[in-house]
Order: sequence, then structure tokens, then C-alpha cells
Amino acid sequence: MQKKLRVGILGATGAVGQRFVELLADHPWFELAALTASAASAGRRYGDACRWLLSSDIPPGVADVVVRETAPTIDCDIVFSALPGDQAGPLEEAFAAAGYGVFSNASAHRQDPDVPLLIPEANPDHLTLVGTQRARRGWERGFIITNPNCSAVMLTMALAPLHTAFGLRSVLVSTMQGLSGAGYPGVPSLDALDNVIPFIGGEEEKLASEPRKMLGTLNGEQVEPAGFAVSAHCNRVPTREGHLETVSVALERPATPQQVVEVWREWHPLPQQLNLPTAPQPPIVVRPEPDRPQTRLDRDAGRGMAVSVGRVRPCDIFDVKFIVLGHNTIRGAAGASVLNAELMLAQGMLNT
Amino acid sequence: MQKKLRVGILGATGAVGQRFVELLADHPWFELAALTASAASAGRRYGDACRWLLSSDIPPGVADVVVRETAPTIDCDIVFSALPGDQAGPLEEAFAAAGYGVFSNASAHRQDPDVPLLIPEANPDHLTLVGTQRARRGWERGFIITNPNCSAVMLTMALAPLHTAFGLRSVLVSTMQGLSGAGYPGVPSLDALDNVIPFIGGEEEKLASEPRKMLGTLNGEQVEPAGFAVSAHCNRVPTREGHLETVSVALERPATPQQVVEVWREWHPLPQQLNLPTAPQPPIVVRPEPDRPQTRLDRDAGRGMAVSVGRVRPCDIFDVKFIVLGHNTIRGAAGASVLNAELMLAQGMLNT
Amino acid sequence: MQKKLRVGILGATGAVGQRFVELLADHPWFELAALTASAASAGRRYGDACRWLLSSDIPPGVADVVVRETAPTIDCDIVFSALPGDQAGPLEEAFAAAGYGVFSNASAHRQDPDVPLLIPEANPDHLTLVGTQRARRGWERGFIITNPNCSAVMLTMALAPLHTAFGLRSVLVSTMQGLSGAGYPGVPSLDALDNVIPFIGGEEEKLASEPRKMLGTLNGEQVEPAGFAVSAHCNRVPTREGHLETVSVALERPATPQQVVEVWREWHPLPQQLNLPTAPQPPIVVRPEPDRPQTRLDRDAGRGMAVSVGRVRPCDIFDVKFIVLGHNTIRGAAGASVLNAELMLAQGMLNT
Amino acid sequence: MQKKLRVGILGATGAVGQRFVELLADHPWFELAALTASAASAGRRYGDACRWLLSSDIPPGVADVVVRETAPTIDCDIVFSALPGDQAGPLEEAFAAAGYGVFSNASAHRQDPDVPLLIPEANPDHLTLVGTQRARRGWERGFIITNPNCSAVMLTMALAPLHTAFGLRSVLVSTMQGLSGAGYPGVPSLDALDNVIPFIGGEEEKLASEPRKMLGTLNGEQVEPAGFAVSAHCNRVPTREGHLETVSVALERPATPQQVVEVWREWHPLPQQLNLPTAPQPPIVVRPEPDRPQTRLDRDAGRGMAVSVGRVRPCDIFDVKFIVLGHNTIRGAAGASVLNAELMLAQGMLNT
Repeated sequence: MQKKLRVGILGATGAVGQRFVELLADHPWFELAALTASAASAGRRYGDACRWLLSSDIPPGVADVVVRETAPTIDCDIVFSALPGDQAGPLEEAFAAAGYGVFSNASAHRQDPDVPLLIPEANPDHLTLVGTQRARRGWERGFIITNPNCSAVMLTMALAPLHTAFGLRSVLVSTMQGLSGAGYPGVPSLDALDNVIPFIGGEEEKLASEPRKMLGTLNGEQVEPAGFAVSAHCNRVPTREGHLETVSVALERPATPQQVVEVWREWHPLPQQLNLPTAPQPPIVVRPEPDRPQTRLDRDAGRGMAVSVGRVRPCDIFDVKFIVLGHNTIRGAAGASVLNAELMLAQGMLNT
Repeated sequence: MQKKLRVGILGATGAVGQRFVELLADHPWFELAALTASAASAGRRYGDACRWLLSSDIPPGVADVVVRETAPTIDCDIVFSALPGDQAGPLEEAFAAAGYGVFSNASAHRQDPDVPLLIPEANPDHLTLVGTQRARRGWERGFIITNPNCSAVMLTMALAPLHTAFGLRSVLVSTMQGLSGAGYPGVPSLDALDNVIPFIGGEEEKLASEPRKMLGTLNGEQVEPAGFAVSAHCNRVPTREGHLETVSVALERPATPQQVVEVWREWHPLPQQLNLPTAPQPPIVVRPEPDRPQTRLDRDAGRGMAVSVGRVRPCDIFDVKFIVLGHNTIRGAAGASVLNAELMLAQGMLNT
Repeated sequence: MQKKLRVGILGATGAVGQRFVELLADHPWFELAALTASAASAGRRYGDACRWLLSSDIPPGVADVVVRETAPTIDCDIVFSALPGDQAGPLEEAFAAAGYGVFSNASAHRQDPDVPLLIPEANPDHLTLVGTQRARRGWERGFIITNPNCSAVMLTMALAPLHTAFGLRSVLVSTMQGLSGAGYPGVPSLDALDNVIPFIGGEEEKLASEPRKMLGTLNGEQVEPAGFAVSAHCNRVPTREGHLETVSVALERPATPQQVVEVWREWHPLPQQLNLPTAPQPPIVVRPEPDRPQTRLDRDAGRGMAVSVGRVRPCDIFDVKFIVLGHNTIRGAAGASVLNAELMLAQGMLNT
Repeated sequence: MQKKLRVGILGATGAVGQRFVELLADHPWFELAALTASAASAGRRYGDACRWLLSSDIPPGVADVVVRETAPTIDCDIVFSALPGDQAGPLEEAFAAAGYGVFSNASAHRQDPDVPLLIPEANPDHLTLVGTQRARRGWERGFIITNPNCSAVMLTMALAPLHTAFGLRSVLVSTMQGLSGAGYPGVPSLDALDNVIPFIGGEEEKLASEPRKMLGTLNGEQVEPAGFAVSAHCNRVPTREGHLETVSVALERPATPQQVVEVWREWHPLPQQLNLPTAPQPPIVVRPEPDRPQTRLDRDAGRGMAVSVGRVRPCDIFDVKFIVLGHNTIRGAAGASVLNAELMLAQGMLNT
């Protein structure tokens, strides 16, 4: 194996930053070279600067890494961004301008016309926007790649092969999202326990727009959004991890539940063909039981990178309905970014 | 005040039976005269036979009542049935045949063409089916009145005035239902904690059919179901009490969210006009906050008998979407039956 | 009934402040005259300034009260202080110096030698310290009365009659405390769900010292702490409200579990004799079941003001062991303060 | 590596049985050869007969194993028993009489004078009772080895090196035990959510007696119980897995918290010396943070086999106090049994 690529994590002390650390600490292609955080944490040991939330311990060696302030002077080739929404925009641009490849979990640049909003299984061809992006912004080596909102990943994974096979017309989705999606400290326990909070700021808008960009058509220098409509209800439920979504779909070309299941079972997209280290095999797990997937039992499928579907049945109003589940801080955040980087590396787009 | 009507509770030791006890122990019109349970509990003190689940104590006096076996020989005028589904059918008929008025929370007779499936606010006119029922079954004094499934109550309360005002075409609903809906012992804690169970046996079918019967048209001796379609996703979430439902609605005649809210605010149906003891004022609480109703904060509205709605907004696919919440063991079960009996008494249909 | 006493709530928007509002909104002796909060909230409607956490709605009329900044210029006779620990000390002194009677739930002055640390059932005689306090501090009308830490209330209630009857030597206590004890936002849900946090800052020290002051002997101008030792383990468990404590006690004079129970059953202290509005009847509820009191089932006993005990049994190491439970934001906080004020009013110490 | 030993699991479909399956499916020394359950499940595929509760999937191959009825005719050398308490006694004897080595998690034989109650780190010398057992019962090859109650394991692990170093006089323990300890379906969710249940049948008695047997002195053909007293409070809290215990200890020879910590840190007992596959390195994890171990963060330490301690501090009544945490269905049940078998195999006591 060739020399590992040196990577940094921006915003490494937060909930998603910790997932990046966990996934990258022992990665076959990437070597953890830098951890950044706000100025208040810069100069401290990572083990001291961060309140570690995961049930695994901090990976050996990482606790003693000295945290750097987030600035494009760190020593690495690419960076993964877990920056807060209000800071991600300009900071990520500064890194890209300085020559870093930026893989961002933040929403700041997701809707930029020249920035790929990428799920490697769904729209790997959108990576060609990188050329447009560099040309337009005058960046020689750097670039920004984004991954979608946590709820949008699960939904789009399930929809992608259906859109290819049958054409989507309308998608009505209602989510039950885990607490980790709100970060840390996030939702106060007095609000969470024995309660459902039927509102998550900005989430329904992201679900309405992100799947349409990802399943849209590359049209020269930008993406033509797909023509279907998405209408969402987003809810916070008292589970730790895992976003479960109920989905009702109207199709262009009628399909039975069995045909839908077959399309999912036969889906073998590029990351799985390339056998990328973080790519789950299979990408979509179809559960045959009447009461699966369940949040706790299935969120870890494919080491948190697979999406599980089930309860595929006819809908009296649309064509079919089903449920989809994924791990929001792995497939829905840090893992999504890592897979994006793996795809570019495997395709020779990160050669240094 | 006239003499109180003597009432019995069938299946008084279970979760819904306990709610009946709580609601009837100090009722202005009804006097608790008999408690029944299975043969195994017959002859025991209620306080010993029942594992009391409510945070209030057993009402004074009730703990010492001797439980009777469920048979139509108990000394009272009407009975409230919290019998298990597999026993309710024949037992409730036996009570009605013996002359008791039966107010049933069980599903056994809900779809019988001559049995009212009643929400006093929504379809009080369906009570005229009692005459048909007696004629057809040869019952002189007895009868069976049912209340709907717990999820169907909340939904139908919110839909009833909209159907009148705008006409319903399609209703897509996704529920987040509390644990008490499964009874006791019900859902094991190892299944409930940190989990969503996306399946509740028979629930989606009930949601598809019961609102249509309740909002249907009385056509001589039976009810013509309303013409709209309901498609449901039913989920169990880790909350104690309260069913929260996300609802998307297509209407016959277009309406704005504001018009929908006005219709709810102006709704003043019969139980509220009659000022029935258990009728909430108002029946529908419209919450203006962006994140309300919430399960824990709003399930007790109107002492558990009101239904709370909120987040009324346009839907990109249908016309409007909103959420609705209600207390599943009060408005969704025992309280619904009690209100049914109050309506009949207030209308002179229970004169003894 | 005479004219109601006008009362203010300092720090009215927090978790304990809300409980004060709930308890005082409809009080027979007190009239809610002023609500204060930090400068940031001053001038806003209470309904806007406060994120209401209780399942009851904000009492009618209170939502529209304009919040005042916390300063001794508000128009009322006595104040209840739910101020944060770091602000309570000087602010409460300023109010007392300005002539207000201050009933404080904060810990700032609990260990001042001239300030009563009061549980009306346990040490009403300590109120005579008010004279000492005024003399020493040069206050003419004002004073400060404190109530103990939430965990210490439950424990001291159970211990008080035992100390009188048998003499306490050693008390070993391990607590399981509800989330509301940490205030709002308090414990993040990611820390609370499926977890026990075995540490609560400062709590074990308070449990070691406060019961000894309260059960100590009034010795002229100060209190001689009682001679027994308390050793505590304090834990946060994922319950909303209610502190449950396991207690093992060594006595000066041996006693059987049955004798302990009798002492509790026969306890009829001053607030119950005076029939104070908030005093629970009885103050200690002895549960005979093998598995009671339970947090959810028993925390509301006596409208949250009673303390429940159970599982009284011999201890192989000490004399007896038992469990005790109380509602931490009612008996353990706001309700404790209100009862303190009722006791002073009933004894003619608040005449205006 | 030599040929693997063929092992069976008795009661394989329950909660502890599933943990045995998980731990043995890929074990370096043992090969899963038989799964048994009640007559009702016999003849069915394991995947159908068992409601799998773990978040991992059923190990490959195991789902298709046909379940056998529990009888000493299965084809294997040793068996692990997860049988229910009321069946374990005679069935385990029948297996031992038929020549099987029985490693039992049930309590039936724990107090038999000739049956080792074993924690390999604490009392490996008690294995010599096997000879006594065979002689007394007339068994040629078979035997019964038991592991302790789940709460007793954690406590005894922490106490064992302290007893050696300082001598124990009194141990006062209060537990906060996870829901999985009650098996499946176990605790109803309506009892668990937002509640503490301060009673677990038989648990306090086991905590009082089992540590004394394990830390007792082998005296020819039986064990002289250790002379210290244990007094326990046992509580069920709403966590999935993990038993956290607060412990106060009186010692024969005084020790500071620092000395206690040193004893734990230096402890390197037999299973760790032998490097048994399931033995955690180290057996006791000492957490230095003020708020650790926490149930969720630390229960998986050492793949669920280590015990975590923390908060070691002086006790005003006894000598020291601390907390201890362990995984109740791994170290506290199935993993304990597996480690017992590994110890015997490593010492040549299972040669076939």
C-alpha cells in the first residue's frame, strides 16, 4: 500500500468531530495529522479539550495530540470539516483557496451551484463539478465537497435506485430523529425524556431540496434538480442515534412492493464496485420482518454506513410506502464525508 | 341533581380499566357500582387484584371493592368495556342482550354496520343506529356503542371540521404513539428504551377505515363511509402517554393554513354546547408556537380530553400539513367512552 | 380571610422559579405581586421571557406579567428566591437589608450561623435565629430564611423523628436523583439517556452538613450541629423528578423496623398541627409494599410535599435500613420555601 | 492450535443465552455444537425460536442451527447453562451426572458446599472443590461450576484485592442495575420509563452471601466464608446494560484512597497471567475523572469483561468509599461462565 494521505479534522472536539476521529484513527488510506478547534481549545491536549461522548475510548495516541486553532496553516493534504454552521462557510473557502481539499459536513456550501452535494452511491458523476469550481473560484488545487444533511442521506440512498428504475413524482416523509443529531450539549434531557419535539429548525427545508439536487442531472457546469417534490415532517424522538423515516412515494412508472425490493437488492453502485474501505456491502439492507428496521437494532448495520429499509407495502394514496433507517452521525455525517474522500482517492482525484 | 346512574367496568384491572376507575370514581352523573375481571381475579379486593399503574393513588373506597367475574349478572345499568380484544365480542353482546347499555373501548364491534362508532364532537347523529341495532338483534333495552382506536380519535377530531368545511380527499398520517397504548405489561423495556418500533399490529388498518366510518353519512340503517382515503404509518416511540401524529391532507376545496386554523378555532360541537362534564372546552387547542404541541407538555390539555394541533403549514404535495396530539388512554380510550355515555344521558337516551 | 400578603419571586424564569409560580398563583395567603429575572429578561412578558417546562400551562394572568430586573425596589412584602448560586448571596442580603423577608432556596446563606436552615416539620424553633440575625446585621424588618438542598430535605424529614426517638449515630445514604435537580437546560440528553452519572457537584458535602445543622440544638445565638455523621454517594439517574435515597442508620438506642415505622406514623409536627396550606397530611407516607416508594408512582404524594418511606428492614451492619423519596422541585425546593413562609405567617412573624 | 472443545448452550434463546451465543460463536478454544431450549422451541431454527435482542446480528451460521430440547443427550463436551432458576437445579445435575462439565449462570447450585462459586481473578483455588464434588456425588467426569450473581461479580472483583491487602470488615453497597438484568421480556416499559424500582427479588440476599463465599478460605472439602458483613440496597434504574454500585468499606487495616487505588492498579491475577482469551487486561480499570465510571461510557470496558472503579475517597463513617461498574450480561453472566471454562481448560482440567 502506498503512503497514507495526511488528513486534518476541523472542529474535532464536537459530536461529529469525535466521529471523524473514531473513523480516521485507524483508516487504511488516511493518517490523522491535525485536529483543530476554536481558539479557546487551541494548545490543549485533545483529551482535555474534548468531552468524549462515544462509548469507545479515545483512540490511542489521539488524546495527546495538541489541538490547533482552525486556520489554513495546518500540515496535511485534505481536511474534514465538522465546523459549526455559522463558521463553516468562510473557513472552508479559506482552506480550499489555500490548496486543501475540503470534505465538509456543514450545510454552508451544499447549495452552491459549483459544489458537489455528494453521496458516492447516488451521484458520483457530480464530482466533475470540481473542475467548474476551481475554474470559477480560481483555486488551483483546493476544492470543497459536501455531504448532505443526516436525514437527507438515508432518504436519498433509498430513493436513488427507485428514481432510476421508476422515476419519482412525489415523496412524503415523516422523520423520527435521534438526539445526537442536535450535537452536544444539544437537547436538554428535560425536553427529551418522555417527549417528542415535532420541530427541527431548517430540517424540513433541507429534506425538500437536497435529494432533488443529488438526484438531479449534471448539465454542463451545474446540476438540474430532479423534478419530484418532497414534503417533510421532522421530529426529534428520545433515541440516542439513528434516524428512522416513514416514506410514501408516487412514481412515474407503477411498481409493486416486490419490484421495489428487487431494485434495492440488485443495487451495486460504484463505491461497492470499488470496494471502498468505508463502503457498506450491501449499501441497502432490506429487512423482511414485519417490524424492522428498528432504531436500536439496525442503526449499526454495515458499521453504521448501510441504510436499512423495510415494511415495503402498497399505499392507498401513492404507489408504495416503506421505512428507512440510518445512523445519523456515521452514514449521516462523518462516515459520509470519509466515503466521499475515499471515492476521490480511488478515482485518482486526490493524487498529491 | 337527580340520582346517579349505576355503572360497571368490565376488565377493570387492566391499563384502560384503571383509567375508567379514575374517571368514574368521582363523576357527577355516574356512580361506580361494579368492577369485573377474569375468573382468576374474581373475589379478590380490587386493590389486590390490580397492579395500579397511575401516579394518582387508587380512589378512596375503590381498593376495597370486591372484583366480580365478567358476566351479565352484575348490579348496574350501563357498563364500560375495557375487555381484551379476543373476549370483548361475545361478552359485550351478552351484556347488551341482557339489557345493559354497553360502552365499549374494544374493537370487536366497531365495524358492525348497526353499531355506532362514536366521537360525540364528530358524529353524534350516528346514535340513531341504536334503534336499528335493537330491532335487528332483538334487544329491548341493551345496546352497544363503540369508541374508535386511540390513534383514530385524535386524527378524526382534527379532520371532522375540515371535512365539513373543505371536503377531504386524501389523508397521509404517520404516528408516534406512547407505550401505554400497548397496555400492561405491554412493551418490554428492553424493546422500548432508545428505540422506535415501526409497527403496531392492526393499527394502520384501523386508521384507514375508522375515520371514514365516523365521518361517513348516515343512510337510513347504516353508514356510508366518507369518500376520502387514509394511508397510515404507525410507530411506537418511548413516551409514556400521548399519540402525536404528522398529517398531510388533500382537500376538495382549497384552503390556506389560516383558514384551517379558523375552522378549528370556531368549532363548537354538540358536547361543548351541552357542556357535558367530560367535554373539553375547547375540543381542539390550536398551538401557535413553532414546536408545539409536544407530547409531554400538551397531552394533558383539557384534562386529557382535548386534542392539540399545531404547525399548520402548506404542503408541497397536498394542500396543508399539520400535527395533532392527544392523550391515548383518556381521550383515546376511557375518556372517549365516558363522553359517549354522557352524550346519551344528556339526550335522554339512558333514562332508566 | 385577611388581606393576602404580597410576594415576589426572584429568578422566576428558571426551573425552580416556575415551580414557585405554580405554587403561588392560587395561594390562599399569598398574592403574586412581582416576578424578577436577569437584566436580559427585564421588561419582557413572563410568557415570553420564560421557557415554561411544566406540563400544566402558565397560570392565567401570569404570562402577561412584565418581568422586573432583580433589585430590592419591587413592590411586595416578602420574596422567594430561586436565584442562581453565584448571584444569590449578595442579592438576598440586599433585599433583606431593604426590609424584605427573604425565603431562599439558594445555598449561599444556608450555613451562616445566624440564618435558619429550616424544615418546618423538623426544626421550627430555629426561627428564633431571626432575632439574632437582625441584631447582628442591623436589619430592622428584613431577614433571610433558607431551605435545605433537595436531597437533604427528604433525608432530614425521615431522620428527624428517629433522631428524637432513638438518637442517630451514623447515616450512610446513596441517592438516585432526578434530572430536574440540575435545572434547565441542565443535563444534556446525550448524557442522561441510558446512563447514570455518579457525581453531582457539592451535593455530598451538603448532605453531610445540612442534616446536622437542622437537627442540631439551638444554643443561644447559634445552632450546635447534631453529633451524628452522614456519608453520602450522590447519583443522577434518568428520571424527570423525584429523589430516591437508600439509607442505612446506626442508632444510639436500638430500634426494630416496626418501632421505626411507628415513630413515623405517629409523627404529627407543627405544620400539620397548624394545618398550614402547603403542609402534607401526613408528612411521611409509610408504604407497606415490598417495592415502594417508586419514583414515578410516589413523588407526587401529598401534592409533592410529603416524603414517602418504605422497605424498612434490619441492617447487618448498622441498625436499620430503608428508602426515602420526595419530589425535588416541590418539597425539595419551591414548596419548602413556601411552607417556611406559611409557618412564619401562622406564627405572627410576618405581620405587616 | 489444538482441536476446539465442543460446547453446548442450555437455554440458548433467552437474554443470557444470546450473550453466550455472541461470545462463543467465534471463540478460539470452543466450538458451538448445540443449542437447547424448552420443548416448545425444540426442532425450530434458532433464528426463528429466538427473539434476538442484541444490536449485532445473529452470528453467521447460528440462525440455521436446529434447537434441541434441554436434555443430557446433546453432542458436546461441556455446557454453559442459562437456564431459568426454577429449572436449572435438577437439569444441571442431570448433565453433570451424564458426564458433561456444566458452567452455570443460574443460582441453583451456587451455595452448594461442594460447588465452586468462581471468579477466576478472585478465587481460582476453589476449583479444587471439583474433586470433592465428584467424590461426594459419584460423578466420574461431569461437574458443576457456578458464577456469581451479576451484582456480586462487580463488587467481588473490586473487593478481592482489598481483602487480601487490608482485610474487609464491613461493606455497605447500593446498586443501580440495568434492565437487562431482569431478562426478557423482563421489566415492562411502563414500569421502567422515568422510574426507579427499589427492589429486586433475592438480590440483596445474594449480595450478602456470595462475596463472602468467594472470598472465603478453602478448608479441606469446603469453603469457610470470609468474616466480613455485606449489607445491600438493590435498585433497578432505566439503563439498558450495566450495574453501577456505590460502596462504603470498613477495613481491618487502615488504608488511604491512594493505597486502595495502588492495590487495584497492581492487581495481576491468574487469568491475566495466563492471558485467557476472555480475560480483560487489566481486570480493574481505575478511572481518575471525578464523574466516572458512568454506566453508558464504561460498561463496555475490556469488551464488557473489565470492572471499572472510580471516585475513591475517604468515608466519614467507614474507611473508604468508591463506585464500581460492570457489564451485567457479559462480566455479570455469560462472559463470567466462559472465563470459568477457559481457566479450567488452561489448567488442564477439561482434557477430553
